[in-house]
Order: sequence, then structure tokens, then C-alpha cells
Amino acid sequence: MSTDQWDREQQLVERVVASFDGTPDPRLRELMRALTRHLHDFIREVRLTEAEWQRAIAFLTATGHATDDRRQEFILLSDVLGASMQTVTVNNEADGNATEATVFGPFFVEDSPEIPLGGDLGGGAPGRPLWVEGVVTDTGGDPVPGARIEVWEADDDGFYDVQYDDDRTAARGHLHTGPDGSYRFWAIVPTPYPIPHDGPVGGMLAATGRSPMRASHLHFMVAATGLRTLVTHIFVRGDELLDRDSVFGVRDSLVKDFEPEPAGTPTPDGRDLGDRPWSRVRFDIVLARRGE
Amino acid sequence: MSTDQWDREQQLVERVVASFDGTPDPRLRELMRALTRHLHDFIREVRLTEAEWQRAIAFLTATGHATDDRRQEFILLSDVLGASMQTVTVNNEADGNATEATVFGPFFVEDSPEIPLGGDLGGGAPGRPLWVEGVVTDTGGDPVPGARIEVWEADDDGFYDVQYDDDRTAARGHLHTGPDGSYRFWAIVPTPYPIPHDGPVGGMLAATGRSPMRASHLHFMVAATGLRTLVTHIFVRGDELLDRDSVFGVRDSLVKDFEPEPAGTPTPDGRDLGDRPWSRVRFDIVLARRGE
Repeated sequence: MSTDQWDREQQLVERVVASFDGTPDPRLRELMRALTRHLHDFIREVRLTEAEWQRAIAFLTATGHATDDRRQEFILLSDVLGASMQTVTVNNEADGNATEATVFGPFFVEDSPEIPLGGDLGGGAPGRPLWVEGVVTDTGGDPVPGARIEVWEADDDGFYDVQYDDDRTAARGHLHTGPDGSYRFWAIVPTPYPIPHDGPVGGMLAATGRSPMRASHLHFMVAATGLRTLVTHIFVRGDELLDRDSVFGVRDSLVKDFEPEPAGTPTPDGRDLGDRPWSRVRFDIVLARRGE
Repeated sequence: MSTDQWDREQQLVERVVASFDGTPDPRLRELMRALTRHLHDFIREVRLTEAEWQRAIAFLTATGHATDDRRQEFILLSDVLGASMQTVTVNNEADGNATEATVFGPFFVEDSPEIPLGGDLGGGAPGRPLWVEGVVTDTGGDPVPGARIEVWEADDDGFYDVQYDDDRTAARGHLHTGPDGSYRFWAIVPTPYPIPHDGPVGGMLAATGRSPMRASHLHFMVAATGLRTLVTHIFVRGDELLDRDSVFGVRDSLVKDFEPEPAGTPTPDGRDLGDRPWSRVRFDIVLARRGE
């Protein structure tokens, strides 16, 4: 490239950056200037062709048209590009022994049913029963009573309740820790499932030889007064998808031992599961202090 | 930031980049790897908050929903971020004295009416008559006979024909250069107009204190066998918007002298304009060789 050509490109960048000089909000000004620089760096580095630009416009348009009240294709796009996980990482800097965060995902729903300590949030979803227990503490080691724990997960067929058309609520709920910070509940053992891949993002995964499969996981959101709200998953040790989760959500510290128990093994709370085998997992949760 | 935190962020980038290793098409592989790096660089540099990420998702969703067969909000977004103009710049490196390119814009239509040399492409659009003439040559100075010249422009009210609901065709047409490469036609004097700003992109311009106005211009697309197709505008010298065109399309070399002629001044082709004043502009066009 000639010096003249480099200058023409750079002058354009500077003009666009300067166009945001009058932005009243200083943070928005910073964001728009940085977005401009990185976007132009990308176009210049790859020497984006006009045909590729048109394809990008068409892809974004299709992604917008695939998005509605029940499906958020832009979140999927952010997820498979690792942008969601990078945002989580930037906003949840490690705080000593605090439990690590991971992606929120598109399947959280407000107003989930409340269950008592030891209750079952399966709601009839097909799957192998799973006993989950642990204790919530702060980074100083003190138990956190009354912490709100939200849990949601896909069923054995790989679907969340909201992906069905029948308004069911299943494999979703919330509970509160007891006076000693401990919690326990019944759920189902998570299995691998694909993110929705019949849209533009699925097309991108196919074109790049990537799988839409997510490693098996249970979603957790844990909130308590004065502490940083934790959004995370637990993953299943031994899952072959741990190193190629389609949204890059896996962290080593979140991989847990799910211990299988044969049918007939007495359950921790005396629940009678008849001839069904079940599993158990322990997940001790450490919340960071707010603002850390 | 701690070294550990930097490492966590960088490891995530490398995992996402590596996820594209199996992309069969090498160019797509290159594009996705580079896109990943620049996207993550942006998120890390500005320390994007989760609330800002959500706002970005909502903005993209609204942009997708504003886009339909008649309106392309993603092209507008690309335009106001200078991404369209940077793509043009990257793909039209200066070739000696070849005429510079600028943005294509969203208002081109296939199958415009053909007019003869010296014809009127105004189609009844309101505006002051404009005589446009020039010659098309290649970079060696040889005239280019039979070059196809497409022209389109907004009317005096600031709208292109396709922005009306009545299927009109106006201020749009094509013609071919004569045996000596020359051309001439009647159009209307362009006036400043805003890009559509009642959607999400308009909201972004308002939030950043930017104007949606474009500097006055006529669109040209010039094509001839064996030569690089030129997509460009001519701008009006003296237009106060030249240095703050909302899509960054202005280049000094494309600013032309539009000479006003009082009512009654004889026209170049003897057309009788009655008591209407008119203007004239000369635009000599130099086409680069293909592949340059």
C-alpha cells in the first residue's frame, strides 16, 4: 500500500472519530470513538471487499429478522463470537476465591416458581433426578443466609421450557439459603444440547465447521444483599464437550463431579425414587463483595 | 488490571480464534479470526459493562426490525460509522488521475429509464434545472465511447423517488457516452437532505450530537468494458455541509463548481426554460483499469 493510500484511510478514521466530539455523555463518546477505531481497523486489516460488506449487511439483516419476542439471534451471535463471555470476564474480575461467573444466556425468565429448601424444581421435565447441595459464603468465609438462588436448565430432550409452545414452566425455579447459608434441591442431570441453529447464526457455525453444541450445564444466579450478584453455570466433569462449548462458557473451576447413584440408593432427604437411578453434585458458592 | 485477569481475557480470545481453525474457506477463516480479535479488543479496551452490552443488543435488534424491503437501517448504520466509506476507500485505491469513488448509498434502483444524450432525467421532480456535461476517459487519456452512466439524486424536497409511496420514477436515469466519450444531460440542482433519522440510527445521531444532513450531491455510477466501475458523487462547491457530511462521502476532488445562470440565459442545447433560472456543472470522469 502506498503512503498516500494509508493516509486517505487514516484521515477517514480521524474524521469519523471527530464526528463524535460533540457527544454530551462522556462515556458514550468514549464508546463511539473506540468502536469507530476498531471497526475501521478490521476493515483495513482484512481489506474487506465490497461483496463481503454486502454479505455482512445481509447477515445482520437476517439476524435482525430472526429475532422476536421468543428468540434473540443477536445474543446467540454475541455468544458464539465469545463477546458475551468476554463481557462477563471483563465485569467479573477474579476476587480471591469468589466463584467464577459465566454467560447468562437467552433462557432466563423472571418470576420463576419458588421452591422450599430441598424442594424439586424439575416441574415434571424429563430427566434423571439430580440432588444439588452446597453452601453460600462470602469471600471472608462467612455463610450467607437468605441468599436467593435461581436455577434453570434444559430438559433431557435439550430444550428449555420456554422453547415449547405450551407455556409450561419446568426445570426452573428459585429458593433461598437457610440460616447457615446452606441450600439443597432436586433438579435433573443436564445433558448436552445445541443452541438454536436453524437461523443465520447456525448458518455461520456450519460455514465455519463449528458445532452448535453446548457442554451440559445448570444455570445459577445467586443474589444477596451487599454482595455481587453471581451469574454462572456448573458443568459435568467428563463431558466430552467441555473443551468445545459453542459459547465458550466453560471455566475449569465450574466443572463439578456429578456422582451417579444406582436405583435403590437411599436419597439424602428420604425421597422415594422407586426404581430410578439418580445423581448428586455439590456446589459451594462464594460471593464477592459488591463493586469488587 | 492484574496479570491473571489479562491472561483470562487473552485466553478467551485465543479459544474463540481457534474455534475457527476448521473453517474450510480460507478467506472466511481469516475474516472470522480478525473479526473476533477486533471485537474482543474493543470490549476489553472500553471495559464494556453488562448494561452497555444489553443496550448494544437492543440497538441491533431495533436496527434489524427497522429494516425491510424499502429501508435498510444497517446500511445507514454502516454509513454513519464511516464503515461504508472505508470499504469504498480500501477497494478503490488511488490510480493516478482516476476519479475518486464514494459511497453507493441505499437509493440506487436497477432498470432506471434510459435517456438520450442531452435528455432530461428529472422526470418531473421539483428542482432547479441543471445542465451536466463532461467526457469519460481512461487513465491513459483515451476517450471511452459507449460508457454507461447512471445518475440518481434527491428532489428539491430532499427525497428520492423510491421514498414516495406512489411508485414514481424521477431524478433517476442512465445514458451512454458518444463516440468521443462525451456526455451531457439535464437533471436538477441537488440540495442538502437528511438521511432517514426516525429510526435507531437517527437516535444514535441525536444522542451523539450529530446531524443527519448530507451535503448536496448527484450520484454517478459509470461502467465500461475493461475498466473499473466507478461509483461516486459530485458535490456542490460552497455547500456549508461539505465538512460534516453525515456519511463521510465528501472528497475534495469531487467538489465541483455549479454555475448559476439567470432566467433567460440561452441553454447549451437550446431548451426553452421560460422564466426559470438554471445551473450548469462540468464533470470529467477518468476510469481506472480493472483490477487496479
